[in-house]
Amino acid sequence: MDVERAFAQMPFANHVGVELTTAEPGHAEGVLSLADEHSSNPNTLVAHGAVAYTLADTVGGAAVVAAVEDVAPTIDMRIDYLAPATGGALHASADVVRLGSSVATVNVSVTDDEGTDIASARGVYKTGGGDGRTAWNDDDGSPSPDELE
Amino acid sequence: MDVERAFAQMPFANHVGVELTTAEPGHAEGVLSLADEHSSNPNTLVAHGAVAYTLADTVGGAAVVAAVEDVAPTIDMRIDYLAPATGGALHASADVVRLGSSVATVNVSVTDDEGTDIASARGVYKTGGGDGRTAWNDDDGSPSPDELE
Amino acid sequence: MDVERAFAQMPFANHVGVELTTAEPGHAEGVLSLADEHSSNPNTLVAHGAVAYTLADTVGGAAVVAAVEDVAPTIDMRIDYLAPATGGALHASADVVRLGSSVATVNVSVTDDEGTDIASARGVYKTGGGDGRTAWNDDDGSPSPDELE
Amino acid sequence: MDVERAFAQMPFANHVGVELTTAEPGHAEGVLSLADEHSSNPNTLVAHGAVAYTLADTVGGAAVVAAVEDVAPTIDMRIDYLAPATGGALHASADVVRLGSSVATVNVSVTDDEGTDIASARGVYKTGGGDGRTAWNDDDGSPSPDELE
Repeated sequence: MDVERAFAQMPFANHVGVELTTAEPGHAEGVLSLADEHSSNPNTLVAHGAVAYTLADTVGGAAVVAAVEDVAPTIDMRIDYLAPATGGALHASADVVRLGSSVATVNVSVTDDEGTDIASARGVYKTGGGDGRTAWNDDDGSPSPDELE
Repeated sequence: MDVERAFAQMPFANHVGVELTTAEPGHAEGVLSLADEHSSNPNTLVAHGAVAYTLADTVGGAAVVAAVEDVAPTIDMRIDYLAPATGGALHASADVVRLGSSVATVNVSVTDDEGTDIASARGVYKTGGGDGRTAWNDDDGSPSPDELE
Repeated sequence: MDVERAFAQMPFANHVGVELTTAEPGHAEGVLSLADEHSSNPNTLVAHGAVAYTLADTVGGAAVVAAVEDVAPTIDMRIDYLAPATGGALHASADVVRLGSSVATVNVSVTDDEGTDIASARGVYKTGGGDGRTAWNDDDGSPSPDELE
Repeated sequence: MDVERAFAQMPFANHVGVELTTAEPGHAEGVLSLADEHSSNPNTLVAHGAVAYTLADTVGGAAVVAAVEDVAPTIDMRIDYLAPATGGALHASADVVRLGSSVATVNVSVTDDEGTDIASARGVYKTGGGDGRTAWNDDDGSPSPDELE
């Protein structure tokens, strides 16, 4: 399954600028270059908290999808903000810390170019198959996860 | 303080399509019309979880900002997903459930046009003034919260 | 299934003083009378945060167990503290807000005798059967959930 | 300030069996020997989730108290359960990952004697002084934090 390729087709990840760079079973990484559109401030670049969340949720999901080779909708996620992000790129690294038959628990760390901790997230994702909330659950001819190999 | 006007200038909220419709001390509401760019699926519209998060974090912050008349950076937020969002608009309603001198705790409910619960979020925001993560902390001539009255 | 009776045998709930008073499918209530042993302060009664958590986790689980008639281990829980608890009893009311085939999401409100909000919790519980973390998963002759009718 | 000595007087920590073994500014460790009273099961020892929470919340608070040399009430905490705890002792290690003037964010890891991850918690604590929820806020002659040196 080509998880990077599948995620590269995800409209909202593209709209916000998330790029998935690594996706292995239980581990994924991604990057997002900050631009004016990501700011919560019209006059200077200070990333809105939802930018780090978008990156964390997407990369965390990729770590699970790569492990289970199926869709993995987010059930819940918590994010803690540790420092403001004011430029350069955000880097996310996600690790599955528990992989069960029904859910997976994932830690995601978000840092800036200097390695400063920007945010830390923990999410729980469904592992037993999707329920309509993710990218590959339709039957209209689009590539399914199994076909993306 | 004109909170709606201040939030209308927030670049990332605009980029994602969040519109703040009500902001009173301790309560705020907002709306987001779902479009293809919000999807996690290239073939059909199923909103990415970070769309509801962006709406919830922004509207939750507005409820606090309207109460303290100052910036209110998010310290942490948890979101639980209750049903997929597949079209129409998302509506968020935020209420401050504890307003302290250093932090505020906020509940945010996200529903769709039919009133179905899409997500439920709880966040903690700083109330004692900002630290560089929000819209009005610069000194470059942009309107400050106090000037936005 | 007699959920109240099953929970009345739970050693840690008894050790802390949790009493389950109502358990219907998707809804449960419980009470805990505060005593000196619950304090975080050796000189005056101010309940330790883990007292409200113990009550919330237990009553939240009961709401799920009563709905699925099976064990329901906690996957994760968040609790927000809204006011100190300094005497009388703590009352918890739990409602399942999403009941899925693999997990359930539950809101729990904890109040004191005056109805003041003490804490608010949200938990995710496994609904597809237990994995060794709850009361009724052994085969040593103890009552199973099915036998507790 | 003798944080270990102060925490050794905390009634609920004693009632559950939490022992604080290390408390340095920003870091703390503690241990809890599992016994029948900690179980969620009347027939076999499977620790109730609130046992790990009690340990995590207490040790996380100690890491903050040791850093700010003042009370540090819990504002919110999330705990994720990673494996059942069935015997021996639980060990908690807490690290402050952000120490601000109004709040601190703390990670707490809970493991068993074999080093298996049992639970992982993240909490936010108030750092600007207490509000009645913790051990050392009275004026009745009991030792204050400053006196506990």
